[in-house]
Amino acid sequence: METTTLSGPTPDDAARWHQGALYLAEQRLLPERAEYLRLETAGEVAEAIRAMVVRGAPAIGVAAAYGVVLAGRDAYATAGSSWKAAIESDLARLAASRPTAVNLFWAIRRMRDCIADLGTGDPYADLLTAARALHEADRAANRRLGDLGAELIEGPTDLITHCNAGAIATGGYGTALGVIRSAFAAGKVRRVFADETRPWMQGARLTAWELMHDGIPVVLQADSAAASLMAGGTVGWVIVGSDRIAANGDVANKIGTYPLAIAAKYHGVKVMVAAPTSTIDLETASGQDIPIEERDPAELLGCGDQQLAPAGCLARNPVFDVTPAALVDAIVTERGVVMQPNAEKIRALMADGVA
Amino acid sequence: METTTLSGPTPDDAARWHQGALYLAEQRLLPERAEYLRLETAGEVAEAIRAMVVRGAPAIGVAAAYGVVLAGRDAYATAGSSWKAAIESDLARLAASRPTAVNLFWAIRRMRDCIADLGTGDPYADLLTAARALHEADRAANRRLGDLGAELIEGPTDLITHCNAGAIATGGYGTALGVIRSAFAAGKVRRVFADETRPWMQGARLTAWELMHDGIPVVLQADSAAASLMAGGTVGWVIVGSDRIAANGDVANKIGTYPLAIAAKYHGVKVMVAAPTSTIDLETASGQDIPIEERDPAELLGCGDQQLAPAGCLARNPVFDVTPAALVDAIVTERGVVMQPNAEKIRALMADGVA
Repeated sequence: METTTLSGPTPDDAARWHQGALYLAEQRLLPERAEYLRLETAGEVAEAIRAMVVRGAPAIGVAAAYGVVLAGRDAYATAGSSWKAAIESDLARLAASRPTAVNLFWAIRRMRDCIADLGTGDPYADLLTAARALHEADRAANRRLGDLGAELIEGPTDLITHCNAGAIATGGYGTALGVIRSAFAAGKVRRVFADETRPWMQGARLTAWELMHDGIPVVLQADSAAASLMAGGTVGWVIVGSDRIAANGDVANKIGTYPLAIAAKYHGVKVMVAAPTSTIDLETASGQDIPIEERDPAELLGCGDQQLAPAGCLARNPVFDVTPAALVDAIVTERGVVMQPNAEKIRALMADGVA
Repeated sequence: METTTLSGPTPDDAARWHQGALYLAEQRLLPERAEYLRLETAGEVAEAIRAMVVRGAPAIGVAAAYGVVLAGRDAYATAGSSWKAAIESDLARLAASRPTAVNLFWAIRRMRDCIADLGTGDPYADLLTAARALHEADRAANRRLGDLGAELIEGPTDLITHCNAGAIATGGYGTALGVIRSAFAAGKVRRVFADETRPWMQGARLTAWELMHDGIPVVLQADSAAASLMAGGTVGWVIVGSDRIAANGDVANKIGTYPLAIAAKYHGVKVMVAAPTSTIDLETASGQDIPIEERDPAELLGCGDQQLAPAGCLARNPVFDVTPAALVDAIVTERGVVMQPNAEKIRALMADGVA
């Protein structure tokens, strides 16, 4: 892994395939430094996902798909016609990089479908075509769901978003921020209040950067300040992305989404979850079956490089939580919108689409 | 103002009068460095309150009382028998240091009562006696309300606290942490989950330090992780302090208390507000009449010395919120406990005490 001077990245160009390598925006350095990291092996991609060089469920999926391309190239280089056996260790490594975002497993499964269709010859070109198609499909899904979500928003209103579900968290355009982009273009957005999103500060570092880049009015706030903002009565919707939506409509998303949804319900503010159908996991019955990643307590004991808590302090650091479907007003996907989600409606969406 | 090598401070010895000066624990440096700041004028005390060298409503009141002592000494030195006129500018400066914590105004009013009883001679000794009495009364109140609050807690349970309402936030022993200390001594506390409390990180820096100092098991968590902890079913009570309690029982406290109380209600977790009666403001009818301080957005745009958000990013930084009385199960004071607070019960408490 090395950083590179390839110009950019912009929020909407966070993952690029260039001269046989994957370039990922180094999200740990944004917004202070906008740099690409050049990745040439599946192992490097898995490590980049684990270490949060790339984050955001759809973007993790896109990165993993390109990781499979790199895995296929290496497997063919080392094992020739036996590449399908040789690729397995890299696929396992990619799948083990993070546990909660289902788009990771979905992308690997899609690439496995491609692998199954191939022969014993060099898979590189076909795998790259498949990864690029998956990447493009995610971008197109976001544009579509962005427009569908924007249609739900009435008149000029304030919005709250949590974490970053923007272009940089996806194949492009963004899920929650895709809806916000489309709604802003339609004159429906007064201000976007971005929760800073402890501990990783995706809101302060990424969402603020993306929205300022697009000229959309953004106001940063502490995660715990969202409720008193809602009490003021100017907020129409909370709009967030998701890392996994269970078959019953329960939503796993960045830690803090759940209390935000509880507060929204208390204040009569509506909650929209914007996500491509690749985030819906019919094999997970409900939210309690979703594995919730716990990350290093060090992320909480300090902030950035600065130590805050006393040495030896214990900490719990779950980085996702589960919002029950009952607190969600709308799940917005590229196939259509599910209002007041439940298992039956989710099943129908996945079978037919409802838009 | 200068830091000093006077040994300490410990959490329970955060404000000391020593050789004609006020020594305050420099809370901006804790827990990394435990140092006292030596203050010799009321102006220095006002600045220390504004800059959060000292914070926590009761501790602000104690510091302001000693600030009045310093003001009286200076007024007599410069104006002699006209000191009562000369002291007014310093009293105004102290009162303007922070807006939300009513203990500040309460302490200045108590000291004014003392001033009214004095003649034109040197007021120093009498003012110091009054300030010391106020300080000692706060410590005694905390011990009493700590015991009363602990009685409400059943069996071993997990607790959540927000911000720091400990010994260091008060004259000693603490309000919320006073209850927790008494409950721990009675074998009723399994673990205390301390919200880190953005943006100032009082939980990470002060509450963790205090509880570790006392050997009480503490686990730090992001503010936004409290709700998913409650969903796990191990938490019996949320226990917090307060900066001002309105006549109807609405509670102003550190930003994030309100969403915590909403989440507690949603999960059937009980909410206890622990505060001396000096925090109850009968002249403020309801929470919406409480002035909510907004501090420098810079507190949000970075964390400590580290810049996080893009340059030029807007931010809102209200540092308190209002929890309506309907979300509070118990207000615990040194005069007694008010369950399901309302205006009538608060009035009765302040008239007679109810313990």
